[in-house]
Amino acid sequence: MEPSADSSASPFTPLVVLELVSDTKEEAITWLLSRIRDPQQTGGAGLLVEKLGPGVGGEEKENPNLFLVGASRERLLSGAEDVGLFKEYSDGSMRGFTCANKHNFKDFKGDGDSFLSMAECQYIIKHELDTLRAKDETHVPGYSHAKLYPGKSIVRRLLSKGILIQIFPLHHKEELKRLSFSWYKKVKLSLQPLDDIRHYYGEGQALYFGFLEYFTFALVPMALFGVPYYLFDWEDYDKYVVFAVFNVIWCTIILELWKRFSASLAYHWGTLSRKKAFEEPRPGFHGILGFNPVTGREEPLYPNTKRQLRIYLVSLPFVLLCLYLSLYVMMIYFQMEGWALSINDQDPTFWTGVLIYIPSIIYAVVIEAMNLIYRYAAEFLTEWENHRLESSYQNHLVLKVLVFNFFNCFASLFYIAFVMQDMVLLRQSLATLLITSQILNQIMEAFLPYWLQRRRNKKMIRKVQKRRTLGDKELPLEEQVRLEADMSTYLGTFDDYLELFLLFGYVSLFSCVYPLSAVLVVLNNVTEVYSDAFKMCQVFKRPFADPAANIGVWQLAFETMSVIAVVTNCALIGMSPQVKAYFPDSDTQLILWIVAVEHGLLAFKFILTFLIPDVPKHIQIKLSRLEFESLEALKKKKMLEASEPRKDIQ
Amino acid sequence: MEPSADSSASPFTPLVVLELVSDTKEEAITWLLSRIRDPQQTGGAGLLVEKLGPGVGGEEKENPNLFLVGASRERLLSGAEDVGLFKEYSDGSMRGFTCANKHNFKDFKGDGDSFLSMAECQYIIKHELDTLRAKDETHVPGYSHAKLYPGKSIVRRLLSKGILIQIFPLHHKEELKRLSFSWYKKVKLSLQPLDDIRHYYGEGQALYFGFLEYFTFALVPMALFGVPYYLFDWEDYDKYVVFAVFNVIWCTIILELWKRFSASLAYHWGTLSRKKAFEEPRPGFHGILGFNPVTGREEPLYPNTKRQLRIYLVSLPFVLLCLYLSLYVMMIYFQMEGWALSINDQDPTFWTGVLIYIPSIIYAVVIEAMNLIYRYAAEFLTEWENHRLESSYQNHLVLKVLVFNFFNCFASLFYIAFVMQDMVLLRQSLATLLITSQILNQIMEAFLPYWLQRRRNKKMIRKVQKRRTLGDKELPLEEQVRLEADMSTYLGTFDDYLELFLLFGYVSLFSCVYPLSAVLVVLNNVTEVYSDAFKMCQVFKRPFADPAANIGVWQLAFETMSVIAVVTNCALIGMSPQVKAYFPDSDTQLILWIVAVEHGLLAFKFILTFLIPDVPKHIQIKLSRLEFESLEALKKKKMLEASEPRKDIQ
Repeated sequence: MEPSADSSASPFTPLVVLELVSDTKEEAITWLLSRIRDPQQTGGAGLLVEKLGPGVGGEEKENPNLFLVGASRERLLSGAEDVGLFKEYSDGSMRGFTCANKHNFKDFKGDGDSFLSMAECQYIIKHELDTLRAKDETHVPGYSHAKLYPGKSIVRRLLSKGILIQIFPLHHKEELKRLSFSWYKKVKLSLQPLDDIRHYYGEGQALYFGFLEYFTFALVPMALFGVPYYLFDWEDYDKYVVFAVFNVIWCTIILELWKRFSASLAYHWGTLSRKKAFEEPRPGFHGILGFNPVTGREEPLYPNTKRQLRIYLVSLPFVLLCLYLSLYVMMIYFQMEGWALSINDQDPTFWTGVLIYIPSIIYAVVIEAMNLIYRYAAEFLTEWENHRLESSYQNHLVLKVLVFNFFNCFASLFYIAFVMQDMVLLRQSLATLLITSQILNQIMEAFLPYWLQRRRNKKMIRKVQKRRTLGDKELPLEEQVRLEADMSTYLGTFDDYLELFLLFGYVSLFSCVYPLSAVLVVLNNVTEVYSDAFKMCQVFKRPFADPAANIGVWQLAFETMSVIAVVTNCALIGMSPQVKAYFPDSDTQLILWIVAVEHGLLAFKFILTFLIPDVPKHIQIKLSRLEFESLEALKKKKMLEASEPRKDIQ
Repeated sequence: MEPSADSSASPFTPLVVLELVSDTKEEAITWLLSRIRDPQQTGGAGLLVEKLGPGVGGEEKENPNLFLVGASRERLLSGAEDVGLFKEYSDGSMRGFTCANKHNFKDFKGDGDSFLSMAECQYIIKHELDTLRAKDETHVPGYSHAKLYPGKSIVRRLLSKGILIQIFPLHHKEELKRLSFSWYKKVKLSLQPLDDIRHYYGEGQALYFGFLEYFTFALVPMALFGVPYYLFDWEDYDKYVVFAVFNVIWCTIILELWKRFSASLAYHWGTLSRKKAFEEPRPGFHGILGFNPVTGREEPLYPNTKRQLRIYLVSLPFVLLCLYLSLYVMMIYFQMEGWALSINDQDPTFWTGVLIYIPSIIYAVVIEAMNLIYRYAAEFLTEWENHRLESSYQNHLVLKVLVFNFFNCFASLFYIAFVMQDMVLLRQSLATLLITSQILNQIMEAFLPYWLQRRRNKKMIRKVQKRRTLGDKELPLEEQVRLEADMSTYLGTFDDYLELFLLFGYVSLFSCVYPLSAVLVVLNNVTEVYSDAFKMCQVFKRPFADPAANIGVWQLAFETMSVIAVVTNCALIGMSPQVKAYFPDSDTQLILWIVAVEHGLLAFKFILTFLIPDVPKHIQIKLSRLEFESLEALKKKKMLEASEPRKDIQ
């Protein structure tokens, strides 16, 4: 293996961009670059790094401190082993890549130039930069307030002190063009190119689009079931019992099947059995310097009890208060609506007819505003809870936002359904909520970004036109990098999943009273695929690949929703006149029966999760074969070692 | 390492006994012994084996084919590595034992003679015997019907063909005496010597006794709470609401805490992070010879669909039929009781007074008989389902037996509580059931085995006395082995756990109406410890150690029971006059409130299982430190390998 430091002068493919603040001190830059270039044996990252030349415009406000990071082929392969990448082996199974064994991997040809995808290379570089640790430096040169201690991740300290503005992977123009063509540019009946999406964006993104597609297909039977229902039984409220029963079974089964589908995707992408690396503390984490009991390294520690206190004594009461507030706003809405209705009833004119809609509109706007404000508050609180790991931060944030959003969106529907018991109003509210939120979403997600992007592109093209280099149409690298650095940052799949979660809620909770909702959600999802794909390809910076094996905490969220759906649908069944007719004498009997059925269904659901294995059989076999082979290899190795001394004697 | 075949002539400590049928063909014996003695390099087990000499009696009916198996110290240590034994490392953490690293383990002194406990040595020998595989033999020599194929476990084939009668580990007289003294022979207030039990019987046994003890202590608060309740509120049925609420919280929390306690026991015993070895097919498993997709070895395969058909089309309907039958018997019992009561009411004499108790007695006997018959049927059916693995067989058997036993024991109580709504009768029935079953159990478990053992011991002593060798009181090895071979075989912890499961049911489901039940169960458990300990030490053959990390499927069973307990207690609360008084006007309101509270409690229970980590923090830290270190070591090794070629160049 050639020492990677040697090849730093040779031309390389830029993969990742580091943007430092424009007034970074020269000594800090020199130090950082040399630490990145130093070979691994001396504690460096062993990567290649170059400063980006000035842009075509050469304007003064342009940031000169953009650096391109790449790596030699050998460095990338050894990095792939570091991060524990799984690749397809010659026998068709997925195995952890090792350099020693590289020629036995299926796609390893020649010297392995195209073995790793660009997204994988970028992930490797990010990992190597993240684990580039301080040695005996006490602070970043030139910045005495940016403290360092042995073992501290340099990049994370630079990020937390604001010296490093951002670090992002570059797009690949050709690949992106190909991907976007097969993904959303042609009108087609085929599925999304999930493997290509995974190849370009990584597993986390691909799983989201896979889930979106799966969810849409899962809704098709319900939509098909719903349309005739809607057309012929529109006014016959009694008939929803069949639909509610269908709902209960549907939402249980699709989530179980998704787990299997997701496991088989993750297996083929090599993330299913991949071990998670030890997570670094998040950049914002702070505490008193001590020794980490796991790694033995010196790092900030923050007592868990203190965090628990913050969670239970501040965050929890705050969330409850917000829920109460949301409830309060809801009650005001119902009062306003009652008042508007009474005015309209007393003396109906054109203006009172308009007045009826005013409370709904105000309430919808208030809900959106509350969601937004609450989101900021939740982010602030979760940050303040000072979680050590990004994953733990994310889980706490998701939980907070989820509970509030659920409450905010569904509380009024529950109130109408079970307190007011007004099925007509329930259907109207559901339809209004669903249609309004979908229209708003489409505008926010598709139209707005498109418009913003067009404006930004025009500006850049105008700038380049000034230099009259537009002849070959391709932007020079300097401009391309600066263009991408200006693009918005993709903040992860959080909001996309949240939207799906709420749609899943509308469909599974109340679709029996408004059978058309599945059709609406299907339509929404189809356009969602296109707008999300467009966003990913055209609006946002390329995100780093996220080697996810499943949709994580969202699986739990959807499953919780499906339990709530069982309870809700059973209650709706119990309230239907059709069922009530069977128990003309006694409400008590009816309720007891409904409760018994509901408990039976919940037990059945629970048993079903046990009976349906989470991983399909053929993948389970492959996984245990791998495990068996490694055990056998270990045994053989041991046997050889044991027999060696005897050879010496002979 | 010296080749183990050389030392077969030297004296050794016998650890395990193989008993072949008395008319085994000589060629089969010779072949088996040589396969056991052959060194591992040539495919043998590399163990030491000797034939047991004739007994003192020298009677003709004595089986001559008893063989003692042992192993050299080195063989045992390398076997410990094979089975993946975890031992305490010099830094206090638990690590997988490796021979290369042996001197870094805490208790490894000198040449490691006392490093492995006898139970561990016996477990290793059993593992090595189980994995002694046929090479190119097509059948056992002399037995053309005992087919073999490459890779088939020889011992399992001999067992399934009845050539090998049994294989069991020997007791250690001295250790056993010490253990039994500290365990049950002295009256004491201290805890059970769990570490010693684990040392002598292995982790599975120790976890059972640990659970028994934990369960007893967990019941103490309930017992303390129950006594004054019983004494002062005996006739005030209304007061049981507080007790029911206490029950709901109690049964949720103790199971969560047990998981943590069990994890910390398993960690210190080295079974928590130990990987399971690949399970061999059970001896009774049959099928058409094919290639196992996991191991690639030739072995019998049985299509899973066929097994599923047998389970769902035969076993499941059979179980349902049995449940129906049990229900039917229960209804007959209630009819008989009603009839007996009516006769007594019409014309009460002494004989009609006696008549009242007749149905209960008949019902109790019928229940016991049904449980017994059903148990045989369940074993037969599960055998017929032809499960490949012992663990899967056990799970299906446990499930079948559990459901029926639960139904059989509790159906009448549920019927009395919720259909007849007669709390006085419920309390009487509960008390009768609990007390009767405990008395029966103590007789069956303590008195009967003691009596049988005394008779057996006497016989053996008489036999030895004939030869007048009783002077030194110690039996010679030949007699001791034969005595142990005659002892009953311990059939595992199944029945012990089942008994605890039913007791847990009585306490958690209905103790609010009969607060004394916790006291009764505590008393029962205390005597249970003594009688079980006595059984283990004196009545049964020593069982092989079972390296369990938890109580397995029973944890799930107890948790399911605790969910049922929440539902039951909520229903009981709803039926109490005290609560009914709050809703004088409407039963509907009351039921809705109770259902809401019950759902809240179930949700709370669910959240609690998430919030309380299954493994205590300090053990989690130790586990992840180990994982981290092994990752670091791998990285270091890789770095060294990478730098080696450069040295060659220099």
